[in-house]
Amino acid sequence: MAGVDYLADERNKAQFDVDAMKIVWAGSRHAFEVSDRISKLVANDPAFAKDERTMMPRKELFKNTLRKAAYAWKKINELRLSEEEASKLRFYVDEPAFTDLHWGMFVPFIKGQGTDEQQQKWLSLAYKMQIIGCYAQTELGHGSNVQGLETTATFDPQTDEFVIHSPTLTSSKWWPGGLGKVSTHAVVFARLITDGKEYGVHGFIVQLRSLEDHQPLPGVTVGDIGMKFGNGAYNTMDNGVLRFDHVRIPRDHMLMRFSQVTRDGKYKQSDVPRQLVYGTMVYVRQTIVQDASSALSRAVCIATRYSAVRRQFGSQNGGPETQVIDYKTQQSRLFPLLASAYAFRFAGEWLKWLYTDVTQRLQANDFSTLPEAHACTAGLKSLTTSATADAIEECRKLCGGHGYLCTSGLPELFAVYVPACTYEGDNIVMLLQVARFLMKTVSQLAFGKQLTGTIAYMGRLEHLMECRCSVQKAEDWLNPSAVLEVFEARAARMSVSGAQRLSNFTNPEEGFAELSADLVEAAVAHCQLIVVSKFIEKLQQDIPGQGVKEQLKALCGIYYLYLLHKHQGDFLATSCITPKQASLANDLLRTLYSQVRPNAVALVDAFNYTDHYLGSILGCYDGNVYAKLYDAAWKDPLNESVVPDGYQEFIRPLLKRQLGNAKL
Amino acid sequence: MAGVDYLADERNKAQFDVDAMKIVWAGSRHAFEVSDRISKLVANDPAFAKDERTMMPRKELFKNTLRKAAYAWKKINELRLSEEEASKLRFYVDEPAFTDLHWGMFVPFIKGQGTDEQQQKWLSLAYKMQIIGCYAQTELGHGSNVQGLETTATFDPQTDEFVIHSPTLTSSKWWPGGLGKVSTHAVVFARLITDGKEYGVHGFIVQLRSLEDHQPLPGVTVGDIGMKFGNGAYNTMDNGVLRFDHVRIPRDHMLMRFSQVTRDGKYKQSDVPRQLVYGTMVYVRQTIVQDASSALSRAVCIATRYSAVRRQFGSQNGGPETQVIDYKTQQSRLFPLLASAYAFRFAGEWLKWLYTDVTQRLQANDFSTLPEAHACTAGLKSLTTSATADAIEECRKLCGGHGYLCTSGLPELFAVYVPACTYEGDNIVMLLQVARFLMKTVSQLAFGKQLTGTIAYMGRLEHLMECRCSVQKAEDWLNPSAVLEVFEARAARMSVSGAQRLSNFTNPEEGFAELSADLVEAAVAHCQLIVVSKFIEKLQQDIPGQGVKEQLKALCGIYYLYLLHKHQGDFLATSCITPKQASLANDLLRTLYSQVRPNAVALVDAFNYTDHYLGSILGCYDGNVYAKLYDAAWKDPLNESVVPDGYQEFIRPLLKRQLGNAKL
Repeated sequence: MAGVDYLADERNKAQFDVDAMKIVWAGSRHAFEVSDRISKLVANDPAFAKDERTMMPRKELFKNTLRKAAYAWKKINELRLSEEEASKLRFYVDEPAFTDLHWGMFVPFIKGQGTDEQQQKWLSLAYKMQIIGCYAQTELGHGSNVQGLETTATFDPQTDEFVIHSPTLTSSKWWPGGLGKVSTHAVVFARLITDGKEYGVHGFIVQLRSLEDHQPLPGVTVGDIGMKFGNGAYNTMDNGVLRFDHVRIPRDHMLMRFSQVTRDGKYKQSDVPRQLVYGTMVYVRQTIVQDASSALSRAVCIATRYSAVRRQFGSQNGGPETQVIDYKTQQSRLFPLLASAYAFRFAGEWLKWLYTDVTQRLQANDFSTLPEAHACTAGLKSLTTSATADAIEECRKLCGGHGYLCTSGLPELFAVYVPACTYEGDNIVMLLQVARFLMKTVSQLAFGKQLTGTIAYMGRLEHLMECRCSVQKAEDWLNPSAVLEVFEARAARMSVSGAQRLSNFTNPEEGFAELSADLVEAAVAHCQLIVVSKFIEKLQQDIPGQGVKEQLKALCGIYYLYLLHKHQGDFLATSCITPKQASLANDLLRTLYSQVRPNAVALVDAFNYTDHYLGSILGCYDGNVYAKLYDAAWKDPLNESVVPDGYQEFIRPLLKRQLGNAKL
Repeated sequence: MAGVDYLADERNKAQFDVDAMKIVWAGSRHAFEVSDRISKLVANDPAFAKDERTMMPRKELFKNTLRKAAYAWKKINELRLSEEEASKLRFYVDEPAFTDLHWGMFVPFIKGQGTDEQQQKWLSLAYKMQIIGCYAQTELGHGSNVQGLETTATFDPQTDEFVIHSPTLTSSKWWPGGLGKVSTHAVVFARLITDGKEYGVHGFIVQLRSLEDHQPLPGVTVGDIGMKFGNGAYNTMDNGVLRFDHVRIPRDHMLMRFSQVTRDGKYKQSDVPRQLVYGTMVYVRQTIVQDASSALSRAVCIATRYSAVRRQFGSQNGGPETQVIDYKTQQSRLFPLLASAYAFRFAGEWLKWLYTDVTQRLQANDFSTLPEAHACTAGLKSLTTSATADAIEECRKLCGGHGYLCTSGLPELFAVYVPACTYEGDNIVMLLQVARFLMKTVSQLAFGKQLTGTIAYMGRLEHLMECRCSVQKAEDWLNPSAVLEVFEARAARMSVSGAQRLSNFTNPEEGFAELSADLVEAAVAHCQLIVVSKFIEKLQQDIPGQGVKEQLKALCGIYYLYLLHKHQGDFLATSCITPKQASLANDLLRTLYSQVRPNAVALVDAFNYTDHYLGSILGCYDGNVYAKLYDAAWKDPLNESVVPDGYQEFIRPLLKRQLGNAKL
């Protein structure tokens, strides 16, 4: 039945212009066109096939990634792809590889922390991939706390060199991607010691391997740290371990934009403002939020299409069973995730703007918005990655038993995604930073400090502590300003309550530690408010396309009403809403589910994902799930023979009661 | 530093008798002794080593499982182990295998549904493993809805045979464990057709493979369905696909205890009460709840020990950093899971009693408690498996980045555990059954029906709708009867509210469908009440051992206060508590965390798990985590050579800018 679209009925039901929605999702017509062209280029090139990935043993898997990375680089050069196109190509190749760290961490870090001279020297090599770099920060015993790193870089004035050393087992560098087997160079973080004094952690460029035969240089012990969660997934990456035994590097391999060590071993700060570092941080976290919406939308696309294909129970008079997507229990789990995918997409879009804004201000030496921008990006990083990790697993469960098969694509998507909750700032540590920012904001309110951006609502604290939600019937919950006020009031009241309880402690640090779990909840409330408000702001823009805005409005409603229900306890405990209003919100939520139902498949089609990128039989565009599952099964290595390897040694003797003599 | 106990300080802090707690955990001194002896027997036998499991390619992994299963069977026979010991041995071997289905489904099903004659014939073969059986129910297109199965068994009176056939692609049997490569026989579920009429789904014993050469019999197409979630994990199992092309079996291969087809093709029901089937169901679900507490306690043991080993931030004057377990954010995520492990253990223990009770009543033809027992086991299956799946992943995150390594044991534990949310009744389908039971109970209250067991509280509905929680200070939340009343009131009020809203619909089925998501929440409230009340009942028993009961009281408090906080919205919306009382509950919760803190490591030691069973470097008994992680890394296949396979073809040409001519 090749060519039959099993989801055609669903697509015919759609009440909006899917092509117009594709452009909204992509962010612009240009972004859509690049994305569409490059994703098809990758999908149509058999060199990028990924079907066998989850069955490959580690060495084979890794070698295959090396091949793909080299092939991708060859393509990028042959087709003279722009930076934007090249990065899209790596995105759609959809396989963690050393190049992620080279382009995503090594190059940006040298750009950010190298002097002009250092940039010229190293970037010209890195841009042509004549060296391959990684980012060696975390250690076996040290993750989030950078100041706890143990690796040392001791300046030797006699030779004008730094001596890089791993003094303990726990100081072994551990986790850096691309380090284990590929990188020739690394930015290494180490405690700088010169002139008998220690000056904290700094970055150094260290060559690890010979450019001639790839052997580790003297004093360098390096390897892969072993298998990680899942089939395929991050096992394509050589996360590495690295130990230094008094490795010497020239003094000018210290990244010296912000501080330097002089020829005679003096430590000097430069006059470049250190706040510039935060620009990179905002940039990286912005991409993480974008990635969250990509991963989440992918899982939702799979679960939505399969929920429309799959039927279970409800057959009447021998007719077909009910489509699973028609069950309210399925809708109430799936549609909020669909809505979240769109919500995170727009949050990411807004963060892109924030990054531009912060960059411009930094260039003008305006650091006033930094604390707010920092708290906001930390919070959104945490919120979106945690929600996405949970959502992928929920989507897997929404696919029933078949979601457990690797061919569903969901196990690998989950396994490859979850590290986002830990890397670039552990999600709880991030929320604690937001909580600190909130407590500081509340404590400064008395001084009449001007509040801007995402924290501006705290300026209306008096009103927010008093206001009463005006909702009287379900549809009143469609009013954006009523919704915003409720979310603002909840966030404000939770912050104020936290601050009040903090003030009972004589030692504020002890208080913060004691109340930290509650303060994290206030931080979550603040972050959810940001996402809701950015979604609502998006809807206030002009959005072309028949029916597009209506669908987005329904999704926005689902998103905030779902949060309102999930965190009902917060809203009720702070008296922001009444039980009756909570119940009305739930009634509206069900109505919105019914509105979205006929559009669900079209809303995931709008992500414009190729079957190659989705990598899921359950999510395939044409919905021909069962024939494909059946065919795919026979490709498993276990099916190479009808009688399994091991039958003669282990099954036959058991059945024949001859185990007594068997060698097992 | 071999032999050093890095957790000795933690163990010295414990304020209770750990050996006595081990017996409480195991259920009895006898259970402890068997468990202790068998777990050590497995741990000390190198044939059962499992270190390499997550690195093995599928075929090797599977063959290794065949070897272990044969070896285990040999040991069981050599050591003349009792049934209890043999089942413990399989448990501690800790690897899904075809034997699970043979002993856990094939044998019990024949016992339950076979006539005496059939039992004699088949069980004598099965007990000696002269045949290996599996349980072939689900199909490619049919999971939860057994009545939707498509496989047919048509009686042919001419030859006195059934013709088993797979009429469609979606009727292919799909998922049965042990089917793909090993089983010689299966219990096959098919629609019985005789005399031109269909009689619904029945079970048949079908031989699949030759007992001489293991080749599939004529008309049988069978194979493995392919890779599943995770490294190692369920990939040791040959979940299978099976198609029948008019396969003929003798008439007496139909399992005929409850109904039969006569020689002349007449369908007849026997006079054995069909309710007996429910006995098996209660038994299976009871074991699932036990398994939940095992899996959860294992994850909690790993996360607790590593949280005591791991240090992060908080170093003062160059001293060591703070143990992660000392952070309230860590405690507020970890300790409720520790408490849940104990809660589920006692719920499982109680379900064992319930099974005995149900069995005795069934034998006496007393079916009165069946609906309640059925709802209760369905609900507890759902509650404990969902919570455990989430908790394992939470424990992984609580271990920071290192939890992502396979050597942490947590990725495999998660991957191997999550199917429990789907098999033996999808968790949402289970909760819907509970919801139906609750709605029926409420609707019958008017008729004065006597309520027993876990639903008895509904008999006090009038009081529960009115009562006010008496808590005035934090410690009042230690009062068990106040707590029980609050949980009962919440469950009762949610059920009543659901029933009231249902009554607004003219078609009750439509109403149930529309409100199903809310009704599921009422079901959860009911199930949580059961777990809380069984924990509280346990504490009313005599529990020997210095300090043991005090620890269990603290854990019980943490469990219910954690639920109260997590579902604050329910309690507030139903006016069971006030915001002030919710806040007091949180205060007490923090106090209880501090009480448990010094006992945490001892409380997981009480599970008495060997390092072999735990299978986790992060959770190893001696806490020597970092040295072990470092050593383990070098065993990865990627580290077999310093320069990786693929360097010459893919890395060197890239670095040397010679990709143009390379064949990629």
